[in-house]
Amino acid sequence: MSKATVTAPANIAFIKYWGARDLDRAIPMNTSISMTLEHCVTQCTVETLSHGGEDEVWLAEPDGGFGTADPDFARRIREQLNRIRQWAGRKEPVRVATRNSFPTAGGLASSASGFAALTLAAVAAFGKKPSQRDLSLLARRSGSGSACRSIFGGFVEWAANTGNGSEEESYARQIADADHWDLRNVIAVVEIGPKTVSSIEGHRLATTSPYYGKRLELIPGRAEKVRKAIRERDLNALGPAIEEEAIDLHLITMSSHPPIFYWSPGSLAVLRAVRELRQEGLAAWATMDAGANVHVICDADSEDEVAERLEDLPAVGFVIRDGIGPGPEQDEEHLF
Amino acid sequence: MSKATVTAPANIAFIKYWGARDLDRAIPMNTSISMTLEHCVTQCTVETLSHGGEDEVWLAEPDGGFGTADPDFARRIREQLNRIRQWAGRKEPVRVATRNSFPTAGGLASSASGFAALTLAAVAAFGKKPSQRDLSLLARRSGSGSACRSIFGGFVEWAANTGNGSEEESYARQIADADHWDLRNVIAVVEIGPKTVSSIEGHRLATTSPYYGKRLELIPGRAEKVRKAIRERDLNALGPAIEEEAIDLHLITMSSHPPIFYWSPGSLAVLRAVRELRQEGLAAWATMDAGANVHVICDADSEDEVAERLEDLPAVGFVIRDGIGPGPEQDEEHLF
Repeated sequence: MSKATVTAPANIAFIKYWGARDLDRAIPMNTSISMTLEHCVTQCTVETLSHGGEDEVWLAEPDGGFGTADPDFARRIREQLNRIRQWAGRKEPVRVATRNSFPTAGGLASSASGFAALTLAAVAAFGKKPSQRDLSLLARRSGSGSACRSIFGGFVEWAANTGNGSEEESYARQIADADHWDLRNVIAVVEIGPKTVSSIEGHRLATTSPYYGKRLELIPGRAEKVRKAIRERDLNALGPAIEEEAIDLHLITMSSHPPIFYWSPGSLAVLRAVRELRQEGLAAWATMDAGANVHVICDADSEDEVAERLEDLPAVGFVIRDGIGPGPEQDEEHLF
Repeated sequence: MSKATVTAPANIAFIKYWGARDLDRAIPMNTSISMTLEHCVTQCTVETLSHGGEDEVWLAEPDGGFGTADPDFARRIREQLNRIRQWAGRKEPVRVATRNSFPTAGGLASSASGFAALTLAAVAAFGKKPSQRDLSLLARRSGSGSACRSIFGGFVEWAANTGNGSEEESYARQIADADHWDLRNVIAVVEIGPKTVSSIEGHRLATTSPYYGKRLELIPGRAEKVRKAIRERDLNALGPAIEEEAIDLHLITMSSHPPIFYWSPGSLAVLRAVRELRQEGLAAWATMDAGANVHVICDADSEDEVAERLEDLPAVGFVIRDGIGPGPEQDEEHLF
């Protein structure tokens, strides 16, 4: 028996993964770029079991105890464990426990941190020490593609095609570390609980939007703006690009067939408030994943005021203050 | 001296006019199709003045009295009066008074009914009796292009290009009269007061959306669906087409440079409620002009329930129940 525990972060995409060439293996249609978070994390312990039988999957519950995962989520975890066993040449079942530091689903990228933590903990429990590239590939194959970005800290790019276009070439890499730029992410939580349409379903429908082809044409230019703004630590260049990109993602979902509305009334209230903050001279820019909650990107000097203003909005349940994080780490203490 | 008073209706577009080949003369980039309303109307009295001098422009105020129009609106009215004088070969100044039956601006098409009523009343005051086609052309040239549809009752189409593509060919015509299909329009008012970005500015920015070209490609097919649904009185065919079209208009505004957000949080709350009504089996479909308010199209049997449900939404200030109308009429009684 061997046991490993890893804490892996969520990430917020500046350029979004939306639509796949191969949805099961999460081979994306477009390049994505993200910032790895510091406080929104998933902790996962994996223990190999000496006896045979099934994998055990436990999820932390709000009271601090652990309960069984819902069947669909447990199935996705077992499938990922099977991929890792196959890759590692191992056969033992494992016991898994996992805990998020933040509310699950609702566009807070719990699946990215969750599958990154699971992948890293399982690999460590099996005693393997692969390259970062291989870890990113393994995390991506979970089907929660953006997990491949959560393997790294700082700013991360997951290229759609870095080489020959094969599945082996689709992985993420760090483009700047967490010390490069102290960006903050104030998350205005307007809806808790699972989304009505999963991201996976959204990816599947992406290509049914008549605007999807044009979106793919726009991405390279927008990604280059984001890369340059990160390189130059230029928030006033980064901001418009990421806000435009976030709106763009939702334009695609709302023009899919059938349309998907991830925005709630509260999302629009926050977007409006962020525009007002800018009119007052504050550099704060919104981005949103496939969900209702709004991530407001600002610098360290503005964080307090941004957070206070967003907290005051009736539509906002609470805010989560997060910043840029150094990436996953292996923990000494285990969840069980 | 001669005086005429006309009541002209607002209209709600099923296929939207958005973007112009020539914005000043309102030559549209695409075909539009609308339903003329019954109760949302503008009444306008025009009196020719025997003495020289300036036109006088009076607007009804909430207390029932009349006040002076704001300078920008008064200028647009005078410019339209100049066009009509030139067309009629007349030179006298006029006194104009105008009153809306509904809250102005905010996507309730007050300019369409307003410029239709002004045009018809002025033409009548000058003693002219032009063809419907010429009246539609004259109303369109006001710059509030959709006024050209308010010349007719029932269902109206304003073709982008009906012949040689010249300015003289851009006018509206009735495609079915008001007796053809008793549709209702329950307007959920979530915001009162002028829009932060005018429709004219929105038209001007339309072509800056990277998706605008694709939108123009989609319009003919969608317009044909709408025509067929009207012909066959098929609400379940009409509904999806008009709701898709309304979302589409706002996708274009939100992807313009700079982006325009006409939606308010309340707009999304109503859109969501309309989807819920449909899940309960009610045939109700939303459309929106360039504003925050939501027009819910349904049949006569569903109107009461739709109106009650929308009234109950916290985001909705009040609802206006309207139906399909027979078009403008000349009034015996004058506003002054």
